Amino acid sequence: MKALVLSSSPRRNGNSALLAEAVRGGLAEAGHEATLLFADDFLKGFLRDCRQCRKPDGECSIEDGYRSVFLDRYLPAHGFIAATPIYWYGMSAQLKAFFDRTFCYYAASYPRSSDVIEGMKGKRMGLVLSSEETFPMVSGAVIGQFQEFVRYCRGTFVGVVHGYGNARGDVRKDPGEPIEAAHRFGREFFTKHATDYQIDTVRPGRVWG
Amino acid sequence: MKALVLSSSPRRNGNSALLAEAVRGGLAEAGHEATLLFADDFLKGFLRDCRQCRKPDGECSIEDGYRSVFLDRYLPAHGFIAATPIYWYGMSAQLKAFFDRTFCYYAASYPRSSDVIEGMKGKRMGLVLSSEETFPMVSGAVIGQFQEFVRYCRGTFVGVVHGYGNARGDVRKDPGEPIEAAHRFGREFFTKHATDYQIDTVRPGRVWG
Amino acid sequence: MKALVLSSSPRRNGNSALLAEAVRGGLAEAGHEATLLFADDFLKGFLRDCRQCRKPDGECSIEDGYRSVFLDRYLPAHGFIAATPIYWYGMSAQLKAFFDRTFCYYAASYPRSSDVIEGMKGKRMGLVLSSEETFPMVSGAVIGQFQEFVRYCRGTFVGVVHGYGNARGDVRKDPGEPIEAAHRFGREFFTKHATDYQIDTVRPGRVWG
Amino acid sequence: MKALVLSSSPRRNGNSALLAEAVRGGLAEAGHEATLLFADDFLKGFLRDCRQCRKPDGECSIEDGYRSVFLDRYLPAHGFIAATPIYWYGMSAQLKAFFDRTFCYYAASYPRSSDVIEGMKGKRMGLVLSSEETFPMVSGAVIGQFQEFVRYCRGTFVGVVHGYGNARGDVRKDPGEPIEAAHRFGREFFTKHATDYQIDTVRPGRVWG
Repeated sequence: MKALVLSSSPRRNGNSALLAEAVRGGLAEAGHEATLLFADDFLKGFLRDCRQCRKPDGECSIEDGYRSVFLDRYLPAHGFIAATPIYWYGMSAQLKAFFDRTFCYYAASYPRSSDVIEGMKGKRMGLVLSSEETFPMVSGAVIGQFQEFVRYCRGTFVGVVHGYGNARGDVRKDPGEPIEAAHRFGREFFTKHATDYQIDTVRPGRVWG
Repeated sequence: MKALVLSSSPRRNGNSALLAEAVRGGLAEAGHEATLLFADDFLKGFLRDCRQCRKPDGECSIEDGYRSVFLDRYLPAHGFIAATPIYWYGMSAQLKAFFDRTFCYYAASYPRSSDVIEGMKGKRMGLVLSSEETFPMVSGAVIGQFQEFVRYCRGTFVGVVHGYGNARGDVRKDPGEPIEAAHRFGREFFTKHATDYQIDTVRPGRVWG
Repeated sequence: MKALVLSSSPRRNGNSALLAEAVRGGLAEAGHEATLLFADDFLKGFLRDCRQCRKPDGECSIEDGYRSVFLDRYLPAHGFIAATPIYWYGMSAQLKAFFDRTFCYYAASYPRSSDVIEGMKGKRMGLVLSSEETFPMVSGAVIGQFQEFVRYCRGTFVGVVHGYGNARGDVRKDPGEPIEAAHRFGREFFTKHATDYQIDTVRPGRVWG
Repeated sequence: MKALVLSSSPRRNGNSALLAEAVRGGLAEAGHEATLLFADDFLKGFLRDCRQCRKPDGECSIEDGYRSVFLDRYLPAHGFIAATPIYWYGMSAQLKAFFDRTFCYYAASYPRSSDVIEGMKGKRMGLVLSSEETFPMVSGAVIGQFQEFVRYCRGTFVGVVHGYGNARGDVRKDPGEPIEAAHRFGREFFTKHATDYQIDTVRPGRVWG
């Protein structure tokens, strides 16, 4: 399977980036085609007002590498793992801009929007977080927001890995061993049991075998 | 230290009860005085309208074991761990009634309410959950609600243990090994790093030593 | 249309009960068959362990009025509005028990569970809240939990009315005029625009006509 | 009083911008010094890795208007109202970047960080939202995140105005009349009753007079 891991921290060797790399390693170990990208390498700006900047042919005029990553890496991926530090109780602006700018391709004014919509559907998704603080709701908004995105796209939310750290590399000393958890998460990403039922979903009485 | 673990499932051998017992075991192993109680053993009904049922001397007239557990077990405890199955995306009605009925003692119409308020303040708190489903927000409301309770009481939210299961004993087979996690959570409950800062909280740059 | 409004506060003349009555009035004014019930009138206890108390014929053995209300009032209703005071950042234990005890009829061990499941599906749902405090997340857990219930049941979450008050009748003086809002909510309950899209939902570019 | 209203949509005449302008008008009508700014006018990029780009004198080297707005407008304001469209269940990346980049001044490596921290504390805050969808949790993550920010900064979360719309100007036709609500929100912003208690907060038994 193809998986895209997106590290959205401005720090390339920060805590969430270390966890993202561990997820990538786990995916590769399990035989998947896993790519780790850094948002700052290809994403240079915010969503704009499409009425101002969409070209006559329907293409987005923002000149950076987002178009290529979104169309050639995100859409074809079977799995997507977003890694972000928790800043002010939310995802990084980089990661948010990654989502916001899907609009340039997803909107009906983009000529191939129906292909884009098909490509956005049905992925397995995961979230990798780092934060200084430990109170459980520190991640509530990020997880809630991501959950809604996954459901909207008819995807499967595989799970969350959360390491605690502030200074670079701190997560390596986190007694909860998030680096190991991230590696395992990558390894099991495409096979892990993950459910989101509705009242008429048929399922077994036992969760485990 | 004294810890109260409250199992609030109607099943005495259900998944959250198994996790609660593991937390109790971990607390005991670390040398703490840990008690595991089952809500159904002492809590027989809902909060009523105090104007109807408070006695002339200010005591609650609901006749069950809640008064004794709340005053003699909950208030003196340094730590409180609530275990609940997630039913309909919330805590069990038993656990909710446990919280609701604090009002009978916490309200100003109870003669010793100021002692009660003192006793409710500053505990370490933990949450133990079981659920059939795995999507991360399945626990969002329970954790959010508990977090608010902990903050209101100026306590410390130590963390959450979450096992997946539906049939009795299912959590024993959960590959995430929640029984082991619950045991460890108990052992480390009074020493685990747990933070909830405000802008003027002085803290070190590194989370881990 | 048939609507059931459930007041789940132990106070019959409390703030959420006043709002519930206003919703009922609005529903009736719009020509709907609206019933207001008080949870304490028919719900006397918590969900138990079905393995202990289900009768040989599959019926629930808890003796109170829940069975009749659930089967004869809740299931046939096209709309359901739950009213609750926010106690400790959650719904009242009464309202939670109302949901928990659906299990006695929804579980496969109840002979007519497939009819029950059909009856639970597709309702319009609303939430009526009162709280002393005003910070917006005071209702976050209740709304989140209810939202998940509505989605699980493939229903439509029409909206929330929230009045602020503590002493009985306080909401009457709330400058946000929640009694009026509750009345209007009832009147518009079955016609109000309410959406919860997924990526492939076809919809107009304009929300309003 | 001084209030800063920040419109963070890329559309200058979009739905959240209309609501932001209505809040500004209400503030002015009540005699306050209210400024409405558009994020895209002064915020050109994301937070970077401070280790790479902080100047030797501790100043941030990102060259856009953020520094001036943050230091000269945000810090001195007694009230701050953030307006954002809900994109993918979160605030716009522009608004998130506004928060992320506080770090450049708030971090200890900025020479006057203690003044910055003082300036960030204790403001009244409000949130203005627009969204296409109406299901109540569409705003859950944004409100939750903002709530945490407000609490961290020991501020007061005055409330939320939420209009529904998708095409430009749609909110004008929203039967919930959010433009009027936004205007009123502005007018009452500095006097509106707003609470977030803890267990030992002394308060009256009645919320309203």
